[in-house]
Amino acid sequence: MTDPILLTPGPLTTSTETRTAMLSDWGSWDGAFNAMTASVCRDLLAILHAQTDHVCVPLQGSGTFAVEAALGTLVPKQGKVLVPDNGAYCKRIARILKYQGREAVVLALDEQEPSNPERIDAALAADPSITHVAQVHCETGTGILNPLHEIAAVVANRGRRLIIDAMSSFGAIPIDARTLKFDALITASGKCLEGVPGMGMVIAHRAALEASANNSASLVLDLLDQWQYMQKTGQWRFTPPTHVLAALRTALDQFVAQGGQPARLARYTENCRALLSGMRALGLEAFLPDALQAPIIVTFHAPPDPKYDFAEFYRRVRERGFILYPGKLTTVETFRVGCIGAIGPGILRDAATAIGETLRDMGVSRYG
Amino acid sequence: MTDPILLTPGPLTTSTETRTAMLSDWGSWDGAFNAMTASVCRDLLAILHAQTDHVCVPLQGSGTFAVEAALGTLVPKQGKVLVPDNGAYCKRIARILKYQGREAVVLALDEQEPSNPERIDAALAADPSITHVAQVHCETGTGILNPLHEIAAVVANRGRRLIIDAMSSFGAIPIDARTLKFDALITASGKCLEGVPGMGMVIAHRAALEASANNSASLVLDLLDQWQYMQKTGQWRFTPPTHVLAALRTALDQFVAQGGQPARLARYTENCRALLSGMRALGLEAFLPDALQAPIIVTFHAPPDPKYDFAEFYRRVRERGFILYPGKLTTVETFRVGCIGAIGPGILRDAATAIGETLRDMGVSRYG
Repeated sequence: MTDPILLTPGPLTTSTETRTAMLSDWGSWDGAFNAMTASVCRDLLAILHAQTDHVCVPLQGSGTFAVEAALGTLVPKQGKVLVPDNGAYCKRIARILKYQGREAVVLALDEQEPSNPERIDAALAADPSITHVAQVHCETGTGILNPLHEIAAVVANRGRRLIIDAMSSFGAIPIDARTLKFDALITASGKCLEGVPGMGMVIAHRAALEASANNSASLVLDLLDQWQYMQKTGQWRFTPPTHVLAALRTALDQFVAQGGQPARLARYTENCRALLSGMRALGLEAFLPDALQAPIIVTFHAPPDPKYDFAEFYRRVRERGFILYPGKLTTVETFRVGCIGAIGPGILRDAATAIGETLRDMGVSRYG
Repeated sequence: MTDPILLTPGPLTTSTETRTAMLSDWGSWDGAFNAMTASVCRDLLAILHAQTDHVCVPLQGSGTFAVEAALGTLVPKQGKVLVPDNGAYCKRIARILKYQGREAVVLALDEQEPSNPERIDAALAADPSITHVAQVHCETGTGILNPLHEIAAVVANRGRRLIIDAMSSFGAIPIDARTLKFDALITASGKCLEGVPGMGMVIAHRAALEASANNSASLVLDLLDQWQYMQKTGQWRFTPPTHVLAALRTALDQFVAQGGQPARLARYTENCRALLSGMRALGLEAFLPDALQAPIIVTFHAPPDPKYDFAEFYRRVRERGFILYPGKLTTVETFRVGCIGAIGPGILRDAATAIGETLRDMGVSRYG
């Protein structure tokens, strides 16, 4: 029996080659493993053109661990962070800051409204004590793409510092450190790079990182300590997820061989188009207009038919070989379908077909 | 070419079956994955006979992440922790507490001296403001086994709370929650359970965990929040290391099939005996007397010969198929050899042979 295809925004379906890389054990102190860590870091910096002013700090745990580590390491205890909020992952940043005792100013937006450079500019003008802006690039809660370059320009112009949650955009959506100023950009192994989950990576501005001593109230999440130790020894401070790193190394080899970020964006864009067109043919409506939609994950309105039930829908689509993702909106009932992973548009067309057959079997007739 | 054998205390050499479990992708929201998480937790509680009063909280990251999470969640901000210190992992606990702003009282011991119940008792009697004792069970820095049951009795008798770092002992050395009181016991996937690294597990006293609200200054390391979310949804709060969990599930199946903790201890004891006897035949001396030695990792004195150089020694032994571990003592030059992993005593005998041949090739003649 084949494993079902994960149409989820990480963990996602990886290639056989990537998973096969986990069939070896690696010593965490060994030179071969250290070289692998260093090469992964080099490749990540190259994707952003960030080799000059930035360094890459990998961290054990999920992407959220790396987001918390970046905030806790780079924002001073007396810092104040503006959090433009148009979704669940923005709210999570605000929650992290509350735990850390860092002051946060939440700029509330509707979930279908992209983050707004003008409003950010006004908020920074109005409050000179705001030191940082924490911006989610692609908000996975809805799938919306926020205008990162415009926001970065505003933040830089006001002399504030930018921390980017690029969890589900890095590797697919272009980000260029030569034209976009940031103190930290966070991503994870199991997203658009198509590795397996288990580690996050922070691309940190070297000078900002070096100036961050004594900020962190956590040893394991202290990125400066992690980076300094790695500089000195080539090793991770604490046991690294060796197999996850080996999978990421192999996934990066495929990423480069397939044409890097432009090729990945092209494939995901095709995936997203195939999905949207298949779903629209069924009468299912996307939550976002196409202009705001990142080709990463698409939120669909649940059919407004009492016969629709997500748990049952999920179970039946899974039987047909596809794992969907629940909605994450508080106001409207939705479900989500990921476009990322080691899959092509044919898979998304098949998924739309499976969804259509499932709704028919469930007797769900009222879609739009 | 075969991969070298890891004679390191985690990551370690896993079985082919365990690594093969990583060839599938899992959806982190999926029922099958949730069931796997629940079954792993059940099995871990059963190993400790801790099903009645304790719960299992898995956490992304390395074992140290779980140690920090246990301290940060269970020790109140005004708590005070006694840390008996006979090695690197005890010192790490003190360092974590310093980061967290929790008061620590370090009870300094020599590295070849086991943790001392009488001195702990005296320290607790002398300072009633000490709320917790954080005890490392097997100190991986040297390989020493600390008298956990005696220490637990003293701590309970003084009405204080015990947090156990059982990273490298859990699954091999017997620990029985029916006769040993503790608030938290921490281990990780890639140690004596012979999974791959990438997650830690905290076995927490349920009532202590439930009373821990607002202690944690970290969202990702808040074990109460992790546990409550898991109770409610069956899911991890943030992306779990899906492949690492699948490997641990398979490793636990083998653990049970092979006879559980008693069988694992028996095999590791045989491994340790084979190693010690082979090394002694070469004239190499263990740092600890046998009575204090846990059958987990053995520290050996480096040969006192100027021709000995660890980096070169390591490289040559690796060429012969074995990965050793550097020493972690500050006072004397040592190296370490792990006895754990999916290996038997024949491997340790072969390792001793390879070490002997390497020293001969290097012209190292003065051993003892």
